[in-house]
Amino acid sequence: MLKNLYAPHEWQIIEETFDAKHHEMSESIFSIGNGHMGQRANFEETYSGQSLQGTYVAGIYYPDKTKVGWWKNGYPEYFAKVLNAPNWTGIAVKVSGEVLDLATASVSSFKRILDMKQGLLKREFTATLPNGKTVSVNACRFISMDRDEAAVISYAITANSDVELEVSPYVDAQVRNKDSNYDELFWTPVSSHFSDDSDAGVVVAQTKKTAFGVATGMIAHVEKRASTVQFKPENSKTEWNVASTYRLQLKQGETVTIYKYVAVLSTLNHKPESLQSATLVYLRELRTAGYDDLLKDHVTAWHNKWQESDVIIEGDIEAQQGIRYNIFQLNQTYSGKDARFNIGPKGFTGEKYGGSTYWDTEAFCFPFYLSTASQEVAKNLLLYRYKQLGKAIENAEKLGFTAGAALFPMVTMNGEECHNEWEITFEEIHRNGAIAFAIYDYVRYTNDKQYLADYGLEVLVGISRFWKQRITFSKAKNKFVMLGVTGPNEYENNINNNWYTSTLAVWTLRYTTETYKFLKEMHPAENKALVQKLSIDEAELKDWDDIIRNMYLPEDKDLGIFLQQEGYMDKEQILVSELPASQRPINQHWSWDRILRSCFIKQADVVQGLYCLEDQFDVDTIRRNFEFYEQRTVHESSLSPCIHSVVASKIKQLDKAYELYLRTARLDLDDYNNEAREGLHITSMSGAWLAIVKGFAGMRVKSDTLYFDPIIPKQWEAFSFRIKFRGYVILVRVTKLQTSIQNISDKDITIKFREGFLQIPPRQTVNELNR
Amino acid sequence: MLKNLYAPHEWQIIEETFDAKHHEMSESIFSIGNGHMGQRANFEETYSGQSLQGTYVAGIYYPDKTKVGWWKNGYPEYFAKVLNAPNWTGIAVKVSGEVLDLATASVSSFKRILDMKQGLLKREFTATLPNGKTVSVNACRFISMDRDEAAVISYAITANSDVELEVSPYVDAQVRNKDSNYDELFWTPVSSHFSDDSDAGVVVAQTKKTAFGVATGMIAHVEKRASTVQFKPENSKTEWNVASTYRLQLKQGETVTIYKYVAVLSTLNHKPESLQSATLVYLRELRTAGYDDLLKDHVTAWHNKWQESDVIIEGDIEAQQGIRYNIFQLNQTYSGKDARFNIGPKGFTGEKYGGSTYWDTEAFCFPFYLSTASQEVAKNLLLYRYKQLGKAIENAEKLGFTAGAALFPMVTMNGEECHNEWEITFEEIHRNGAIAFAIYDYVRYTNDKQYLADYGLEVLVGISRFWKQRITFSKAKNKFVMLGVTGPNEYENNINNNWYTSTLAVWTLRYTTETYKFLKEMHPAENKALVQKLSIDEAELKDWDDIIRNMYLPEDKDLGIFLQQEGYMDKEQILVSELPASQRPINQHWSWDRILRSCFIKQADVVQGLYCLEDQFDVDTIRRNFEFYEQRTVHESSLSPCIHSVVASKIKQLDKAYELYLRTARLDLDDYNNEAREGLHITSMSGAWLAIVKGFAGMRVKSDTLYFDPIIPKQWEAFSFRIKFRGYVILVRVTKLQTSIQNISDKDITIKFREGFLQIPPRQTVNELNR
Repeated sequence: MLKNLYAPHEWQIIEETFDAKHHEMSESIFSIGNGHMGQRANFEETYSGQSLQGTYVAGIYYPDKTKVGWWKNGYPEYFAKVLNAPNWTGIAVKVSGEVLDLATASVSSFKRILDMKQGLLKREFTATLPNGKTVSVNACRFISMDRDEAAVISYAITANSDVELEVSPYVDAQVRNKDSNYDELFWTPVSSHFSDDSDAGVVVAQTKKTAFGVATGMIAHVEKRASTVQFKPENSKTEWNVASTYRLQLKQGETVTIYKYVAVLSTLNHKPESLQSATLVYLRELRTAGYDDLLKDHVTAWHNKWQESDVIIEGDIEAQQGIRYNIFQLNQTYSGKDARFNIGPKGFTGEKYGGSTYWDTEAFCFPFYLSTASQEVAKNLLLYRYKQLGKAIENAEKLGFTAGAALFPMVTMNGEECHNEWEITFEEIHRNGAIAFAIYDYVRYTNDKQYLADYGLEVLVGISRFWKQRITFSKAKNKFVMLGVTGPNEYENNINNNWYTSTLAVWTLRYTTETYKFLKEMHPAENKALVQKLSIDEAELKDWDDIIRNMYLPEDKDLGIFLQQEGYMDKEQILVSELPASQRPINQHWSWDRILRSCFIKQADVVQGLYCLEDQFDVDTIRRNFEFYEQRTVHESSLSPCIHSVVASKIKQLDKAYELYLRTARLDLDDYNNEAREGLHITSMSGAWLAIVKGFAGMRVKSDTLYFDPIIPKQWEAFSFRIKFRGYVILVRVTKLQTSIQNISDKDITIKFREGFLQIPPRQTVNELNR
Repeated sequence: MLKNLYAPHEWQIIEETFDAKHHEMSESIFSIGNGHMGQRANFEETYSGQSLQGTYVAGIYYPDKTKVGWWKNGYPEYFAKVLNAPNWTGIAVKVSGEVLDLATASVSSFKRILDMKQGLLKREFTATLPNGKTVSVNACRFISMDRDEAAVISYAITANSDVELEVSPYVDAQVRNKDSNYDELFWTPVSSHFSDDSDAGVVVAQTKKTAFGVATGMIAHVEKRASTVQFKPENSKTEWNVASTYRLQLKQGETVTIYKYVAVLSTLNHKPESLQSATLVYLRELRTAGYDDLLKDHVTAWHNKWQESDVIIEGDIEAQQGIRYNIFQLNQTYSGKDARFNIGPKGFTGEKYGGSTYWDTEAFCFPFYLSTASQEVAKNLLLYRYKQLGKAIENAEKLGFTAGAALFPMVTMNGEECHNEWEITFEEIHRNGAIAFAIYDYVRYTNDKQYLADYGLEVLVGISRFWKQRITFSKAKNKFVMLGVTGPNEYENNINNNWYTSTLAVWTLRYTTETYKFLKEMHPAENKALVQKLSIDEAELKDWDDIIRNMYLPEDKDLGIFLQQEGYMDKEQILVSELPASQRPINQHWSWDRILRSCFIKQADVVQGLYCLEDQFDVDTIRRNFEFYEQRTVHESSLSPCIHSVVASKIKQLDKAYELYLRTARLDLDDYNNEAREGLHITSMSGAWLAIVKGFAGMRVKSDTLYFDPIIPKQWEAFSFRIKFRGYVILVRVTKLQTSIQNISDKDITIKFREGFLQIPPRQTVNELNR
């Protein structure tokens, strides 16, 4: 397990040496993005060592032909892949005829800094090339948080002796995905072009099959400090790329700086025929604004993001760094401006997991955006699914369901299912429950009941119809059962009566019924139209009610716990503490059947249900289940510790909550799973926020009122965060002594605090002593 | 569903028209082989239409890199593929400059005959080429049943007008597998060579990775009827092939015949360095023997095969043709001479299913060879597994088992697992039971108890140790359970307590214990050595006994049936008769999860257990279970109807038994599953024999005595067959009136016939009236 690779710092991630064997991991860790595009920390200059090139444009994907050993009816034909897009970071450098390449040079004074406060990736180093020439480089890169389609690089080279320098900023569309099932090239070149004044170069490329056009353009200019010389490049191009090559003499101690303004425009937002010209216009605007202004606007935008979403931890710099890193990456991945986008498990930091949307979005990320961003952002996440309802119905039809039953895909880009493991694709259907629950969560938080009439009920009805058909009646049990599912714990496949899935199904049927009745009473006109559109009748509600009343939900009455699935207690009951360290993680040491037969749990399953629906259970029940299952949970999913942490806080097991928080918050920085090189665990990053805000601070919404029940880990002096709630902005600070709640709004707010209520006037703070 | 494509005939399969759309199917149907090699009925002359080229050499395979969507620990790196070997059938023909190609010619008088009695593939046709020239061809081909490495073709061409003829017999090693995961060529050329006298040409090629060398050689000669002209060819070669091209003038009405003697030698039986020279010597022998003698020896060998294994059905020509076809193909696939070979699901008729050995061998094919061939043949099938015991132990170790536990692979060539679906590879472990049961079956039939001491116990102990570790104790049930298995019914995956698997596991533990005790008493010296070698102790026997006494075997007491698995009655109980025809076969119409959730059964599962272990159950129990499960069985495996037929005979449901017999016996000839073009269902062909001999005739071995309890389908006048039993040869003939049993041996035999015993003197027949 790698640890302490990056120095602790409140606002920065700092790497102080260059080690090729950690390079791919650092490429992930130092990734930057703006929700519209993103970039791994690939070096600007040539690097011939091991590297995972990653340039990503939101919404641009390639449908890679399915690779499967044994085909099953219902498998999709393709898997929509996150696409490594044309390279805009490249600046090839030659020093006195030799390529600058940190894999071949001797490197000293290397430092890489991710400045999270300002959203900057900085790097400096001194390199002695095989030809004996030494140069120092000081680079800074950002993807504008203010302008979706812009990125800027400054790259300063100082000569330590007289050298001939050749620098070639370039754009190259001839890039490959590492993850390609049949080793295909995903792009075809469309055009490469230099503007009439030769300043701006643009490469337009198109994805195969999907035919997304992406124009990647650059304007570069070179400045020598204290010099007014106008350097003129020699431009060159092929069908795949453009490059502007500057040749100049640098005397010892002189510095030259390359500025590279980059624009990335796509046919998602521009007409194909004007893509090139729009890119040229956009580049011209960037050049006119200039580096300093672009930087200023970018930093201001980040300042505003942090105003909304920062979490401050006092007295624990590693925890502080961890949570800020998570929030930084979440904000880089999804801005919520565009309902066509979603949050991929790796965001813009790697190719793994392909498709952009998993149940992670609703089950883990949604509350973060709901509390820290404008209401539209969370709404856009819901609308993303609403817009894909038709495809979800088609998806269910492929599996034999009828009459408007909807099964949202396990993995998707455009609403179509991408995944192809039967036990997941066809059986891990609890995702439908999380999508229904997010609607409830949104309305509970925002009180935007109009959403139910406009969009919500349609989705709920589609999902409820799926549950109705997926649930069958067992004469043997005289109960309704749900057979053949995979729960959140993917270390069980094709099980019967998974408590989590069945409980969430019953919950959905109940909530859909309640929503229908609510709309009937409160929005009669809209409801009537909906009833007609969806052909809802009383018989259908009656069918749902039968299931609600008579669903089989397995439990062990002696132990007083719900059973993860029917038959769980037939397994040999061994605790994680009894597992030899040499056998962990079990997914790297055990064959799949052995994992399946064991009692070990990959990630929260019953506990995930307790987390979602805690109001249905008393604290003793939650405690008994938590204690039983936590001892059997190996947390081999990044999505597991955070939920356990929230529930541990709920039952006041503070040490356990803290331990599990740490596993979430520094998962990638400390590379717990030895896989950060493949990309970051973006969706699980919201878990650290959940563990603090829902866990330690105990934030809930109860009966339209914001609620807190805070505790503070003994390792911390204080922690504070800010949330938005129905037009209010609330600042919460919890110290060992007390909790302060500040109402940063211009109207009164009533807050439920433990058993009591606090009335907080505008711009006032109330303090409550801890127990 | 195709039917009546081939005319009914007692001894022949006859195709009377050429239809390109049935060509691939006929290529399968008319396959020939001799257990050592095999050949699809690809045309000798060029054929540019759709065709599946298939030339196979037993034991020669290629380990194709595994193709899998989602890797699981324990999956094998490769899948051993049946290999399309160098083409030796080819005779390119040009008529007055135009290629003879039935895809472009106008074809008349086409007739293809598979003469099963003599083992000949004959073909005649008249073809008018696009250039207007017409020729008639009369071809005959056989793979020698007498000489393992020899095949012969005669190919006569008659000119219907004066033509220039160019004929080029050739051998070509540049062949591909249709089934190749990464579209690779599996062969590399080693050498191509003509003998000094230019008569014989040999191509040596080697498989990649496995480095099997195969030499394919030919000597051709051309004779014109009533002419003594010596035609001399022009020889040509590339690294991949050799060809001898004859150019000659043919006047109207003249016939020329090409004789092609073929030798196929491999490094399985020859040293690589002498492969080419050995092939030349072998070819010379064939040429010296000449066509007529080779044919005579071949026909004699077939005559002897039929003497041993023929089944005669009187009054039902289609049934007669069906059973003969099955026996013919079984004898072509496996001769039992070589314990390195086994019986692939497609034999030498197609590439599908890759590896050569499945549980099919023990569970379905074994009894056929046991009763019709010499005892060595069945013993060689057992030794095949014995020799792979070490690999089976390694295989189990990969899955976490220890201390000599053995899991034989699901699919294999050389003992290593090839398959890569977790629910099959890791969980369809009942195969281990079938392998243990075959040992029992062999000893019960042959009384060769020495086999147990020499080989059997070792295998039984390995398998029992696997069961011991695979079975766990459920505190909840206070019983031993077997979790996470796939039974013979592959329409259930990862189920708990599959009755068949658990029952067979308990049976194995009991039989192993009995065998151990038997050897201890009767073979004390050998037993002592074995005990030492295998480290068996009393504690281990005690552990096995605990399981035998306290295994959980699910049943439904109300229905009086065993439960296919725990929870089976929670499924919606729908009968196959209620399924719309439009949804069948369900494996082509339903998604996998729907199939899994349904009560529908792919193939005999509980019924398979009743078939194996019928002595443990009374007839009423067998009847209740059969009736319950048969109504839920869709028979979408070729291995299903035969077992049901045997059990239906047992419970005297004669119509059902006959219906299910027919589905087995003519499965490929009538192409029930519309897939014969991919190759024949070789292993299920033994099912037709089982349905007659074990089903209708009720043959068993009871307490060391051969037993019969015959019934006869009303559609038949009589049926008869011959079996070998412990040095006796017994001929059984069942008519509507009576059963005649003839003792074709020179000593008395006692036979149990229904409730009584018959003493039959040498060469005598006794007749017993039917009831």
